[in-house]
Amino acid sequence: MSTSDSTSDIQRQTRDHLWLHFTNHAKLSAGGEVPVFTRAEGSYLWDDKGRRHFDGLSGLFAVNAGHGRPELAEAAAKQIRELDYFPIWSSVHPRAAELAEALAERAPGDLNRVFLTNSGGESVETAWKLIKQYFKAIGQPSRHKVISRTISYHGTSHGALSITGLPGLRAPFEPLVPSGHKVPHTDIYRAPEHLRDDEVAFGRWAADRIAEAIEFEGPETVAAIFLEPVQNSGAAIPPPRGYFERVREIADKYGVILVSDEVITAFGRIGEFFAINRYGITPDIITGAKGLTGGVIPAGAAIVSDRLFEPFTKKENTFMHGLTFGGHPVAAAVALENIAIFEREKLNENVRANEDLFGSTLDKLRDLPIVGDVRGAGYFWGVVLVKDKETREPFTAQERRRLLDELLGPALREAGLHVRLDERGDPAILLAPPATVGREEFEFIEQTLRGVLSEAWERF
Amino acid sequence: MSTSDSTSDIQRQTRDHLWLHFTNHAKLSAGGEVPVFTRAEGSYLWDDKGRRHFDGLSGLFAVNAGHGRPELAEAAAKQIRELDYFPIWSSVHPRAAELAEALAERAPGDLNRVFLTNSGGESVETAWKLIKQYFKAIGQPSRHKVISRTISYHGTSHGALSITGLPGLRAPFEPLVPSGHKVPHTDIYRAPEHLRDDEVAFGRWAADRIAEAIEFEGPETVAAIFLEPVQNSGAAIPPPRGYFERVREIADKYGVILVSDEVITAFGRIGEFFAINRYGITPDIITGAKGLTGGVIPAGAAIVSDRLFEPFTKKENTFMHGLTFGGHPVAAAVALENIAIFEREKLNENVRANEDLFGSTLDKLRDLPIVGDVRGAGYFWGVVLVKDKETREPFTAQERRRLLDELLGPALREAGLHVRLDERGDPAILLAPPATVGREEFEFIEQTLRGVLSEAWERF
Repeated sequence: MSTSDSTSDIQRQTRDHLWLHFTNHAKLSAGGEVPVFTRAEGSYLWDDKGRRHFDGLSGLFAVNAGHGRPELAEAAAKQIRELDYFPIWSSVHPRAAELAEALAERAPGDLNRVFLTNSGGESVETAWKLIKQYFKAIGQPSRHKVISRTISYHGTSHGALSITGLPGLRAPFEPLVPSGHKVPHTDIYRAPEHLRDDEVAFGRWAADRIAEAIEFEGPETVAAIFLEPVQNSGAAIPPPRGYFERVREIADKYGVILVSDEVITAFGRIGEFFAINRYGITPDIITGAKGLTGGVIPAGAAIVSDRLFEPFTKKENTFMHGLTFGGHPVAAAVALENIAIFEREKLNENVRANEDLFGSTLDKLRDLPIVGDVRGAGYFWGVVLVKDKETREPFTAQERRRLLDELLGPALREAGLHVRLDERGDPAILLAPPATVGREEFEFIEQTLRGVLSEAWERF
Repeated sequence: MSTSDSTSDIQRQTRDHLWLHFTNHAKLSAGGEVPVFTRAEGSYLWDDKGRRHFDGLSGLFAVNAGHGRPELAEAAAKQIRELDYFPIWSSVHPRAAELAEALAERAPGDLNRVFLTNSGGESVETAWKLIKQYFKAIGQPSRHKVISRTISYHGTSHGALSITGLPGLRAPFEPLVPSGHKVPHTDIYRAPEHLRDDEVAFGRWAADRIAEAIEFEGPETVAAIFLEPVQNSGAAIPPPRGYFERVREIADKYGVILVSDEVITAFGRIGEFFAINRYGITPDIITGAKGLTGGVIPAGAAIVSDRLFEPFTKKENTFMHGLTFGGHPVAAAVALENIAIFEREKLNENVRANEDLFGSTLDKLRDLPIVGDVRGAGYFWGVVLVKDKETREPFTAQERRRLLDELLGPALREAGLHVRLDERGDPAILLAPPATVGREEFEFIEQTLRGVLSEAWERF
């Protein structure tokens, strides 16, 4: 077995044996190279050529307390030596129990019951499954459908994919679960023209489209609404004022379960343990993953209201669901230590104190002709690119490819700034740095984007 | 945040906040207690009362080299300090590339391409999705259906669940993906009477039922066959002689992809890196998880033939699938070290040298009136319980519950032997100890089961 770190070995192993995720392999198979990252510390990554990159994406919205935490390394190693693995199928171990309590204590309202998973997709699958069995248990067996928003991303397994609002991600794999129905997202920049200047009216309109979808499908067949507090795909779309309050009313009116999908937004991303806390309502379930362990060990969770758990306290109802590695002791030990780091170092407080500065620093980019919108919350922002600022004419699909793949991608790598280039809505730059950073890093981001975007616009 | 290990805290935290997997919560919610495991080393577990248990199940078919390996603790901690997390979306890091090569080198035939996941369910989801997109890429877009066996377990996410052959696991969550079709399993103990004494004829019959299902559905709509080399659910059912050769012929005849689901059987469980190597055929995909990292970090993989990857070397085809934590550097580092342990300590060789002794030691239990069958391979065996040995009359559902939940479960815990009590087919005891054990442990297992089964039979 080869374990050499040499660049040529890694390129060869990748070219011959690895299937990269969401990646076109044509160039690599034809002899091209793929970027290699070998080391990370704090908010920086190093590539195999020794070049440093600022991690403006916390890996992939995961390493929220920064890279290379010795406390997390020690927590993992200690747990492996003590109890490396045992399932929580009809038995338990200390770390899973402690983590369940820690999450319940920090969740809003009566969300006191925790089902532990390995990933965001598994959290979404778990939430949907328990909603379906819940409705069968309380005598409403025809409720199985889910309403979610267009362009949203909720995961890639067959269930989560049926909820995902990206037709291009679903089409190669149809037929999927025949229960997914879509409503508009809340990007006011792309709202119908008569609603663009009235956030509250737009929010009301977008929320009422959920009620309309429930009516179209028949309320007695609709089980749940899945929404991200700040929608990632489409470029960090916050909820309009009043939106979540209205959605909560609609869910209650029709007896539908409301899920806050916080795989991206929880655990510090917007300066809250759970982002929904900021938007004034209590959901019935929160799904999470990514930042739970600081990204260091795969783990996720669905956090469920007492009301939904209640039928399962009876002998006749067993939730027929489980995962070998769900509640893994090593993942739970690392998650507990990650929560302790966040509280010891007051990282949520740091995000809340600095988010306006981050936003206003990015807002300066609005003077560039290519920047159509800047929006977000906490340490989660989208810089939206547009072909014509006046008319808001979007880039064509071909132009998007050229802009992102040929111009911005290489230029940002060259500039040492790791971000996500999002092309699922308008082309956009997604920013989600660790919760440890501040003014200096915001200025680096703004300056770097200013240079890269200006040059791309000139060359376009 | 409470981090006390005290028994009463753990019981309270579990009762109030944890949703255990595949567990009825009625007793616990009413004030009952759940078994708590706090420590593990080698092939032993310790509970919170300080009692030692032999781990006859490797956790849950995962800790195949034994518990508490300091090498794995060190590999995890070292990787967290070096590169704690980075995604393999259009970029790579050394450990993912090395692990892909290590798996490809050990996989049969042209299975050279590795898609890394977090769990067995995600490996199965990945395999099915890539098969569907593969057929769309080569101009056979109507192929989406999957044939799998009754009683089989392939995972609990919506896609994997549609392939799973346990109606009771599926019913609460329907509608699922409308593509799953089932054929008989290969338990010769429950074969049609005229086939019970002729393994080859039975294997031919069972394999031909796959061809029949393909014909019934229409070959141009069938994408794949998912089979475990030794089927776990139903109690360690090995393939009859000739079965896999015939299935391979059928798959080739109809142009259908053959997947060897090795979430349980790979990585040493039956003394092979991949179990299918023992059964004389090469599948098109192998799915794995559990034992890949010795169970210490959640991880899985789908290992795919060059033929299936080929369309994805073209610019027009991108596999539209990915997972945040797939190819996680910490999981990959631990998997590489686990492979090194297996080879350094010749653990597969130990299993192969001892499997006949394990089988013959368990065979002694056949003299008990409750034991109907003993079958398996490597370190993976099922002891099947039956109400009437002569007539093979099975236990009723109610009798099974009493036997497993009230008699055998408590008695085995009392005797300090951790196994799986399987009730998905005939009630059975599943055994899957770490690959490190030998004669002494086999005798402990046989003696313990002899005592517990004899007493249960008397009290039944």
